[in-house]
Amino acid sequence: MPHPEAPVVAALDIGGTKTAAALVTARGEIVGRATAPTPGQAGAEAILATAAELVTRLGAAPGAPPVRHLGVGSAGVIDPQRGVVVGATDVLVGWAGTPLAQKLEALTGMTTSVVNDVHAHALGDVAFGAGKGCATALFVGVGTGVGGSFIVDGAPLAGAHNAAGHIGHQPSPYAGELPCSCGAVGHLEAFASGPGLHAEHARRAGAAVQDLRAVAALASAGDEIAAEVLRDGGAAVGSAIGGLVNVLDPHVVVVGGGVSEAGELWWEALRSAVAGEVLPSLVDTPIAASALGTDAALVGAAALAWSTFADKESS
Amino acid sequence: MPHPEAPVVAALDIGGTKTAAALVTARGEIVGRATAPTPGQAGAEAILATAAELVTRLGAAPGAPPVRHLGVGSAGVIDPQRGVVVGATDVLVGWAGTPLAQKLEALTGMTTSVVNDVHAHALGDVAFGAGKGCATALFVGVGTGVGGSFIVDGAPLAGAHNAAGHIGHQPSPYAGELPCSCGAVGHLEAFASGPGLHAEHARRAGAAVQDLRAVAALASAGDEIAAEVLRDGGAAVGSAIGGLVNVLDPHVVVVGGGVSEAGELWWEALRSAVAGEVLPSLVDTPIAASALGTDAALVGAAALAWSTFADKESS
Repeated sequence: MPHPEAPVVAALDIGGTKTAAALVTARGEIVGRATAPTPGQAGAEAILATAAELVTRLGAAPGAPPVRHLGVGSAGVIDPQRGVVVGATDVLVGWAGTPLAQKLEALTGMTTSVVNDVHAHALGDVAFGAGKGCATALFVGVGTGVGGSFIVDGAPLAGAHNAAGHIGHQPSPYAGELPCSCGAVGHLEAFASGPGLHAEHARRAGAAVQDLRAVAALASAGDEIAAEVLRDGGAAVGSAIGGLVNVLDPHVVVVGGGVSEAGELWWEALRSAVAGEVLPSLVDTPIAASALGTDAALVGAAALAWSTFADKESS
Repeated sequence: MPHPEAPVVAALDIGGTKTAAALVTARGEIVGRATAPTPGQAGAEAILATAAELVTRLGAAPGAPPVRHLGVGSAGVIDPQRGVVVGATDVLVGWAGTPLAQKLEALTGMTTSVVNDVHAHALGDVAFGAGKGCATALFVGVGTGVGGSFIVDGAPLAGAHNAAGHIGHQPSPYAGELPCSCGAVGHLEAFASGPGLHAEHARRAGAAVQDLRAVAALASAGDEIAAEVLRDGGAAVGSAIGGLVNVLDPHVVVVGGGVSEAGELWWEALRSAVAGEVLPSLVDTPIAASALGTDAALVGAAALAWSTFADKESS
């Protein structure tokens, strides 16, 4: 248990459906939390007000330590240098163009640093989870989409357009001519994402089950078509990871996201595919499961605040 | 023309067949050069003596400015932090294990910094060539193999095993089940390298011509099989580059190596394939041809010496 008066920062994880807030110690321990639905259709001011209210409420709780710094992971394309949302989907109406850091500083009185939520997840694992202490780390999140982040010396690679980390949008020999959400064909995400594998199972089985969880349940019950879909999904992700390990030679690869909970068939195929792709000198590259669950982006946002502001102070 | 008394550093490019040395100004201008065959079968001491003699001779030339720093690009797996060769092929017998920086400092009296030669090529283009001034750059060299380097803030990403940059060892939908030099199957290099395309042409045409240059000559003369091989080679490289642009979002991609001189058919297919893979927000990522020819690694080694040592002095 953390010391009740240990210094904390505030953290926000602003997603398409839910906004989560927490107070987090320098060791990544959550000492208070609050959540609210994200008012994604009500515009940027409403989203900001909801987020700021959660943080302010946590900071004002009786006995709460003083909170002066805020780290934010947000859905959308984020410019972490300027603290601005440079792109977002219709899930968050009016979010693009929002000067996120500046607005939250004004609303909360806390110095604020922001980053994309997938990059925040990666920061969480490198600061407190499966990639702890690694100089470089490749994070791969496999869920509704396939995304990721490459962490170098504690910071996510942002890229020239703040678009780095789109690991799902690589050509994959497993994806054939499948259309991808980005407009291209044959990308990893089109095959290996949750919806991709669910659709692949429907094609192979001739009928759709409810979702990927149902595919995993079939596989556990001995259904060979379902098992093969999970194996191919893991192998597709592992093949792409292996190729990226040869390019980036990361100190660790961390894999998370909902599909990574599909079971051991998926993981065995992933590990086997990585081993089949990597150079002989890189076979010992650790491949780890994300260790922070749904709190990863939240504690990653906190890690951002600690590294940006609080570590530089005496507190 | 450089000022005759402009400060210079020494640079070495130690390859499997040839060792090149030069004196290079802070603007990347070569003001003196010397080359010798690399005595690759005679062991590390002979290779070092040859390299040191070239540098010493250049530095002792009448009227040469004083030279106190040396940058080295060398074949093999190089640990740039320790200045040690950690791996090499039989082309350089006994090279693995050589404390390269320390030995050359002792032999030349110059403070020495070393890097892998492909990384040196990338440094050259970022310091003085097609990637000049870019915060991040992806260099892709397509020749006998397919290699590369990812430059972040002026330094090549080395990786956990000093193995980063093996861009040829990614799964490529173009490579099918072709065996790769690394032991895996279906890697980009197996299809898109010079020997890969030469072999592909022989398979499609039913007979081998002399080399890739001959394939390019056939294509220029209107041979459709040869043209298609070049187009597929460019497309395979472009497809891989597009995927990496989505992951790394570099400020520029620089493409070099002997195969990049195969002509406009290859380049058009490469650019078209990149455009087909990248996210809509990344279509303006510049794709440039390496601008430094065979001197790229040499001036890149000089850039390393300038940034490591000389830029920090008043000279």
